Amino acid sequence: MKTIIEYQEIVAKEIEKFQAENKEFSLYDPVNYILDIGGKRLRPVLTLLATDLFGGKISESIKPSLGIEVFHNFTLLHDDIMDNAPLRRGQVTVHEKWNINAAILSGDVMFVQAFSLVTSCKSEFLRDVLDLFNVTAIEVCEGQQHDMDFETRNDVSIEEYIEMIRLKTSVLVACALKLGAILAKAPKDDAQKLYDFGLNLGIAFQIKDDILDVFGDASLVGKKVGGDILANKKTYLLLKALEDGNDQQNTTLNTWLSRDGGTEKVEAVTEIFEELSVKEKADEVMNQYYQKSIEALDSIQIDVTKKKYLYDFAESLMNRTF
Amino acid sequence: MKTIIEYQEIVAKEIEKFQAENKEFSLYDPVNYILDIGGKRLRPVLTLLATDLFGGKISESIKPSLGIEVFHNFTLLHDDIMDNAPLRRGQVTVHEKWNINAAILSGDVMFVQAFSLVTSCKSEFLRDVLDLFNVTAIEVCEGQQHDMDFETRNDVSIEEYIEMIRLKTSVLVACALKLGAILAKAPKDDAQKLYDFGLNLGIAFQIKDDILDVFGDASLVGKKVGGDILANKKTYLLLKALEDGNDQQNTTLNTWLSRDGGTEKVEAVTEIFEELSVKEKADEVMNQYYQKSIEALDSIQIDVTKKKYLYDFAESLMNRTF
Repeated sequence: MKTIIEYQEIVAKEIEKFQAENKEFSLYDPVNYILDIGGKRLRPVLTLLATDLFGGKISESIKPSLGIEVFHNFTLLHDDIMDNAPLRRGQVTVHEKWNINAAILSGDVMFVQAFSLVTSCKSEFLRDVLDLFNVTAIEVCEGQQHDMDFETRNDVSIEEYIEMIRLKTSVLVACALKLGAILAKAPKDDAQKLYDFGLNLGIAFQIKDDILDVFGDASLVGKKVGGDILANKKTYLLLKALEDGNDQQNTTLNTWLSRDGGTEKVEAVTEIFEELSVKEKADEVMNQYYQKSIEALDSIQIDVTKKKYLYDFAESLMNRTF
Repeated sequence: MKTIIEYQEIVAKEIEKFQAENKEFSLYDPVNYILDIGGKRLRPVLTLLATDLFGGKISESIKPSLGIEVFHNFTLLHDDIMDNAPLRRGQVTVHEKWNINAAILSGDVMFVQAFSLVTSCKSEFLRDVLDLFNVTAIEVCEGQQHDMDFETRNDVSIEEYIEMIRLKTSVLVACALKLGAILAKAPKDDAQKLYDFGLNLGIAFQIKDDILDVFGDASLVGKKVGGDILANKKTYLLLKALEDGNDQQNTTLNTWLSRDGGTEKVEAVTEIFEELSVKEKADEVMNQYYQKSIEALDSIQIDVTKKKYLYDFAESLMNRTF
């Protein structure tokens, strides 16, 4: 087993190689650009980690793991168009730097590249890999559609919200892990448990994100606290507040939702969140999903010293303060 | 062997089934809509025809052939956004009927569905099918990028133009044919020859399109004659005229290219085309590609009575007057 940093280095090298192999052609400039913006490379790292965990050769998982990262970046590229986002990790988004057409088409070609990389595994694994990846890719599109539909809906339930983040965020984390397990010839049952670990951890992770956006330390979170409130995003916190609030609280919330605002808006909405203890309620639900992920991990039949890497990883995600 | 109409009926039924199986969800409304707009279903028909040609079971090619059609419609959906096209086959385009975001995301999900359908073949064919489809999908994206790049370039050569239509249009026709051959366990050599047949026929087909747009019978073409001239499209005819024209003719052409115009513009540009005999030159090049496609077909080792279907098909494409 390697450290997370070592896996990240392997991924970084492979991304550089991939970028260098892209033709010098306008189509690939945005592809190389968005891959340069970086990120933690969480998903490909998980694929490699999972392969290692089940005693597979990580050299055989590197290209497929890169496919997951390219797919993830393709979704960022197209999501940024749809969200009209000016920045991505502090850098100008592709549709702003080039134009919408470039962002659409370079995203499309990344999608093909992702399929090509993910399926560049040994033929014996091809059917399982395709079944996993096709379903995941469909689910990610469905999650994004739910997210867009929620923007104009006033009746989103918490159940629907959890389903949206499951599709939009968690299934790809789960897929990354299961992919690594498949390529290591893990028993089907264990591969599925690893998937469940990732799925539940992903949901816990997203709820944590919602909490940190409002209650995180601004200097650590690295972005303005309350960004979700300013954007009227239907997060777990807001939906829970609307569910539990009395008439007066809901009227206040809805008034703020219907108008733009700055610090004053963030403070007013946060006050209602505090009155209703939605942070504590969110913590509770987050912990339930975290526990589910740990239970899934507990039940996998591998050496405890190896499994420790995943326990530590899960814990570090939950304890993060930014 | 069946008639083209019989293959079309098989495809139409399969499309209906596919549409009915799509969830009732906003994401799939544009998917079902664009598939309803129709078209000749040329590509899936060719896949089925090719499977039949080599004695395969067409029942095993139906889903993969539908994948090719879904992929084709995905490209139309995204291309229409990029071209800012209000209409597609006389119907409102998806980004006009819904919005750009819906067109992007529903296109993305069609892309996944296409991969899923194309790879829903027997596992023994999976590697060959993936190699073919991945390369083709990349090439189609590259062709669209060239087409977009050409809009703002004044130095496009005829060679580059042919390469663009090869990528944007012909490779998918060739891929559809080769896919059908692979699924029928055709000898590799023959499958490749069938690919070459489709590739060269596709290029001939596109040059024919360019010719008909200017020199076709308006009542038969079903659209205004000279649409390409009005849109300043860099077709074979225009590029050839710019290549062969004297200074005076080129000045006139460039003047018209730099301004909007109606019938007058179409007439003036067509007059230069006639002075330079570009129609005859285009006919000649078109026939060269047509001959190449026929030579590829000639060399395939199958029963002549079966091959007749493809000869007839190729001839009907070349003799069309609309």
